[in-house]
Amino acid sequence: MATATPERAIGQPIARVDAVERVKGRAVYAPDLTLPGTLHCKILRSPHAHAKIRGIDTSAAEAYPGVKAVVTHRDLPALTSDEQVGGEVTLDAVYLRQFLMAQDRVLFHGHPVAAVAATSPHIAEEALDLIKVDYEPLPAVVGIEDAIKPDSPVIHEEVRTRSLEGRGDKPTNLSVHMQLARGDVARGYEDAEVVLESEYRVGMVHQGYIEPQACSVEVDANGHVTIYTTTQASFGVKSQNAALLQIPLNKVTVVPLEIGGGFGGKGFTVPELPTALLALKTGQPVKTVLGRDEVFRATGPAPDAYCWIKAGAKKNGEVTAFEAKFYLDAGCLPGSALYVNNILVAGLSPYKLPNFQADGYDVLTNKSRSQAYRAPGLPEGAFAIETMMDELAEALNMDPIDLRIANVTDDGAPMSDGMALPVTRFKSILESVKQHPAWASPVPAGRGRGVAIGMRREGSGTSTASIQLNQDATFSLIVGSVDLTGTRTSMAQIAAEELGVTVDEVRSTVGDTDAVGYTDGSWGSRITYVTGMAVKNAAEDLIGQLKGLAAERFQADAADIDYENRTFSLRDNPEQTVALSELASTNVGRGTGAIIGNGLATGVRPVTSSGVQIAEVEVDDATGRAVIARYTAFQDPGRAINPMAVEGQVQGAVAQGVGWALWENYEWGEDGILKNANFLDYRMPTALDLPMIETIFVGGPAPENPLGVRGVGEVPIIPPLPTVGNAVSRATGVRIREIPLNPERVFWATHNGGSNGSA
Amino acid sequence: MATATPERAIGQPIARVDAVERVKGRAVYAPDLTLPGTLHCKILRSPHAHAKIRGIDTSAAEAYPGVKAVVTHRDLPALTSDEQVGGEVTLDAVYLRQFLMAQDRVLFHGHPVAAVAATSPHIAEEALDLIKVDYEPLPAVVGIEDAIKPDSPVIHEEVRTRSLEGRGDKPTNLSVHMQLARGDVARGYEDAEVVLESEYRVGMVHQGYIEPQACSVEVDANGHVTIYTTTQASFGVKSQNAALLQIPLNKVTVVPLEIGGGFGGKGFTVPELPTALLALKTGQPVKTVLGRDEVFRATGPAPDAYCWIKAGAKKNGEVTAFEAKFYLDAGCLPGSALYVNNILVAGLSPYKLPNFQADGYDVLTNKSRSQAYRAPGLPEGAFAIETMMDELAEALNMDPIDLRIANVTDDGAPMSDGMALPVTRFKSILESVKQHPAWASPVPAGRGRGVAIGMRREGSGTSTASIQLNQDATFSLIVGSVDLTGTRTSMAQIAAEELGVTVDEVRSTVGDTDAVGYTDGSWGSRITYVTGMAVKNAAEDLIGQLKGLAAERFQADAADIDYENRTFSLRDNPEQTVALSELASTNVGRGTGAIIGNGLATGVRPVTSSGVQIAEVEVDDATGRAVIARYTAFQDPGRAINPMAVEGQVQGAVAQGVGWALWENYEWGEDGILKNANFLDYRMPTALDLPMIETIFVGGPAPENPLGVRGVGEVPIIPPLPTVGNAVSRATGVRIREIPLNPERVFWATHNGGSNGSA
Repeated sequence: MATATPERAIGQPIARVDAVERVKGRAVYAPDLTLPGTLHCKILRSPHAHAKIRGIDTSAAEAYPGVKAVVTHRDLPALTSDEQVGGEVTLDAVYLRQFLMAQDRVLFHGHPVAAVAATSPHIAEEALDLIKVDYEPLPAVVGIEDAIKPDSPVIHEEVRTRSLEGRGDKPTNLSVHMQLARGDVARGYEDAEVVLESEYRVGMVHQGYIEPQACSVEVDANGHVTIYTTTQASFGVKSQNAALLQIPLNKVTVVPLEIGGGFGGKGFTVPELPTALLALKTGQPVKTVLGRDEVFRATGPAPDAYCWIKAGAKKNGEVTAFEAKFYLDAGCLPGSALYVNNILVAGLSPYKLPNFQADGYDVLTNKSRSQAYRAPGLPEGAFAIETMMDELAEALNMDPIDLRIANVTDDGAPMSDGMALPVTRFKSILESVKQHPAWASPVPAGRGRGVAIGMRREGSGTSTASIQLNQDATFSLIVGSVDLTGTRTSMAQIAAEELGVTVDEVRSTVGDTDAVGYTDGSWGSRITYVTGMAVKNAAEDLIGQLKGLAAERFQADAADIDYENRTFSLRDNPEQTVALSELASTNVGRGTGAIIGNGLATGVRPVTSSGVQIAEVEVDDATGRAVIARYTAFQDPGRAINPMAVEGQVQGAVAQGVGWALWENYEWGEDGILKNANFLDYRMPTALDLPMIETIFVGGPAPENPLGVRGVGEVPIIPPLPTVGNAVSRATGVRIREIPLNPERVFWATHNGGSNGSA
Repeated sequence: MATATPERAIGQPIARVDAVERVKGRAVYAPDLTLPGTLHCKILRSPHAHAKIRGIDTSAAEAYPGVKAVVTHRDLPALTSDEQVGGEVTLDAVYLRQFLMAQDRVLFHGHPVAAVAATSPHIAEEALDLIKVDYEPLPAVVGIEDAIKPDSPVIHEEVRTRSLEGRGDKPTNLSVHMQLARGDVARGYEDAEVVLESEYRVGMVHQGYIEPQACSVEVDANGHVTIYTTTQASFGVKSQNAALLQIPLNKVTVVPLEIGGGFGGKGFTVPELPTALLALKTGQPVKTVLGRDEVFRATGPAPDAYCWIKAGAKKNGEVTAFEAKFYLDAGCLPGSALYVNNILVAGLSPYKLPNFQADGYDVLTNKSRSQAYRAPGLPEGAFAIETMMDELAEALNMDPIDLRIANVTDDGAPMSDGMALPVTRFKSILESVKQHPAWASPVPAGRGRGVAIGMRREGSGTSTASIQLNQDATFSLIVGSVDLTGTRTSMAQIAAEELGVTVDEVRSTVGDTDAVGYTDGSWGSRITYVTGMAVKNAAEDLIGQLKGLAAERFQADAADIDYENRTFSLRDNPEQTVALSELASTNVGRGTGAIIGNGLATGVRPVTSSGVQIAEVEVDDATGRAVIARYTAFQDPGRAINPMAVEGQVQGAVAQGVGWALWENYEWGEDGILKNANFLDYRMPTALDLPMIETIFVGGPAPENPLGVRGVGEVPIIPPLPTVGNAVSRATGVRIREIPLNPERVFWATHNGGSNGSA
């Protein structure tokens, strides 16, 4: 493994700059931090999926020795009703508030009802039993297909369907309806030589980050609130808590600690609000560490989905008509509808679809509020879309890659929302994949081979960076993007490249919300691109300032100064030079100046990232157990800043996608009680369950941005569900349209005529 | 006491924004911080003032249970010999290294020889006794007058006198010689009608900050060193420790904690180096808290001084000839000679002195290294200069204020170094003081009344600031200047004024060395002026950016946008307006941008600050005890940002000056052993020792800078020594030319013909 010495920093597969402290266990995660004099918080949660709260009596808990405070929704200040919180992704504050602390009703199994701060976590836990809550159980709406029935109980009387046309006129569990369409679908069916129609179902899963949500909050004597936490979005946690606590933003500082995985699930505040309430009430620091059961029940899993697709195609593979409905489970409260939008735009846009209509719905149920999980919505959408593509190929007896080549959108052609597709090179990528032995080689006996594609559009939000030049010509870089995936390392590489120095010369840190400018969350595959642009801009700003100083020395114009090999020189007179080290040692910290480069990136041009994946699966007929025998992920990272990090991202996303495809699933009782909120009963893949995932870079640099980068964090989790599903179908000869493809489901689908024994 | 609500923030006497947490004891000072798993450090110190170290045996200490590491000078990496460290004030690294850890010799009583890290402070202390040091005592040079004798032992064989002419040619204890001169002194004496010649002596004192030096250092697994400490100069501590540890600057972060007083004495690193060495050696956090005796012995007191002045004047008071020699005690190692320079420039420049020659010397002795103490050098210099002025007035039978009016330098006229005096208005200030009842009223019976003046030139160094706009239109300000004297408050006032909001809307914090740009220390009366300019520049930058956003909305030019009452409007069409809150809520953190204003101030125009003080003293003939009966301090703060803070600064400085004048003094044995390194034997004034110090603002805004401010932190400590001395002289009829004027000295000077009983 190379160390960080090469002069050209970008493109080097260097180890993470923070690797040693992580390997040695010395990085500080939120559960590791215990502030002096801290109290410990535990949260009382609803045992019902839906119930009215008739009363809460906290007096016995408050009187319990060691308990310092108990809070309920009554301790939360009132809100302006139409307030929205969050940055890039916003949410009605009133619903976030209700999610974090139940008010007149509990809306899901595990819904917080009260929180206790005590001198030890054990006392806090004991005190929970002393809180008396008088519940009146209400009927629970557990599944999407229950929720959308006309006679389903309506969870929120005030909810009307939001759509581009405005608001619906009657109470409903469909909180959002989005629609995109093009051409003439009826005419498309007329042109079709094959028409298929199928339903697809995907189970609810959790992001499965190793580290549970945890935080410490302290309030100083002036009322300033400092939140130490594990989050993907420190500025989001800041604004959400400020809004819900009704305190000004300059009285909240969020210090993002190391994060043990997030995958989208740590984008919104969860335990920080009750913890802050308790800290404000007691005047002492308060610490909360969620248990794994609480993480499963009440943080925010990825939505389950119900989809319907009808599609027609010509014999040459050209899809002439396409209709789809995608229902995503929003959980107990209306959300941002972003995930449905993802399916309609990024999910459908790889294909031309001259005639299509797609409808997307956010559906309310009595479950925890759904959250993002890597490319949110797209794995569910891709399972439906890419399985249908496979079914069409089968029906047409066509190579599934050829079918896709026949339909992929040309660069610059309109996406499903009418915007131009950035330079994606999908056709040439598919053509090269088709030649690769992973597809071109004969399928080994006993295996089925499946393929699917995925795409995402990236480049949203705002990032800032600053780079300080030290007297010894080393650099200190600060970004506001939490480091989930090696951000410090890749940002140091970009800075080093732009500054013409080695990675070792750039110290790369993640700032708190006071130390850096507003920066959107570490999500949406935006870090390497958008934060990378902010870093590049900061480096350019800094070099520009140094050129100005060199120009002063040469009595020349800054525009005539070149910078190369750590030296500034006058273009027309290369004898006139001054070293970076000389400028640093004489201009920084000698009472003559400070040199900081500042960089902002916002509203950058979108790029795409795309991938193709191929799985070979063996299915044990006796047990229905599917085993991944070979897995190849083709990914276009654009210009890979750190190829080793990109490979790791791809392998991690594929592992998660395969886990979702084969094993992971929330098991709900009919009463809406979650039955498997632990890692014994909720089956995540381990290294033993997977082969080496071969990662192959395809495509090329994105011409839309000077770094040439594309996001890579999300796309590789899009294809696994259909890739594995298509492979299982080819292996067994039976099409199963429901995820996960766990042994029980595969066994009954392939035996007994598809009916499981109990039905 | 007003709260921070007035719209116009500058000029309001508001309470410190951090008052509540300090009053409640919740501010975190370095001794309060104990990092998890920390080790505790104790330092072994020399019992001799001067000795050769034949050997150090640490083996028994290392073997002692609980001891994790012992370090001596052998653990320090080698240095490049000519390296200089520090920012605005630099120092030879090799001497700073030697001061912080003795090498082949100990140079003063209390010189660090080794440091131990153990699991408890008690174990560390016990282990000190197990370290065997083999000393060979050498003759100690204790006093300035001993050190400058031709036959004095020379402390450092390699030292040659540095002067403008270069280096001297033989070993000496005079490390620096500076000289300024003007006119023809011999001719001046010819014009004089009175010529006086006197010697003056001032004792060594300590800054007497309440909080001892303390720090914690942790080293992460990547070797990054984080220093939590009490310092006036976080960037200085960073660069000094990086240089002495020979690690790059981007591997050191200094986090300045609250500071319990510094007064110049916490400008250079002291315990951080051995603490960092131990943290590097053990891999664990290490904490050091010095005891009061260590603070007295080995941090850096203010130099004692020996001065000689000969001056001639005409009967009208005009000083026609002036010769002076000022010897300051540098302690055991060559320093920056800045304090001698202060006397020659700021000390002499209030007076025209058409014919003068002044020589200044830094003298090496076997004492701790002298450090800055509020207006360093100037109280000692003023005692000589202002006492001589009083003696001339007496000899000429002239009002001492009239004598000064006859001699003060006109604004714009050359100072002693030839530079033009900034707008000081000394003559009008003196004329107004002369009319004030503190001077114009009859002297009450039994009292003596004295007067003296002081001046300082200010505006050195570099400061940075950044202001972040939050979505709710509140602001977060960060500065790099440690808050000794209400910096957060005055900077919030300046920012609020420039931003047109209330102080409550600006959260003001001190950043660590990663979070802000290079900023020189909180010293030299530079904060309100230089850091204030950085804050003003940051606010202007931010408002400029917002004008740009408003201009985009109006499709106009940013130059045509006005900002008033939290509203941006188009100058020619005042109907076109947009509120600050609207720009904040739509442009910050909605994925569309981040708005941070950055400000730098460096190389600003110098200003002066000046003051006149009047004391009335009663002397108890039976005991020689002088009591301050009345004290009036006239001070020109320019435009007072926070009058309450200015008044506090003046009163604090006068209290310290009076303590120096009357009681405080390092008592040395002939062997160079410090005899009174504790607050029982070293007498500092308490509130009971002083009357209410009346503070009167005179002068006016400095035209040299847009804020109109002048420094105020240092000047008020310059006049007290001569003011009190002149008052004692008038009260007793005896001129005493040595500080402190403690009862013993006054008694013997006023009895027994001036000879003390023991001589």
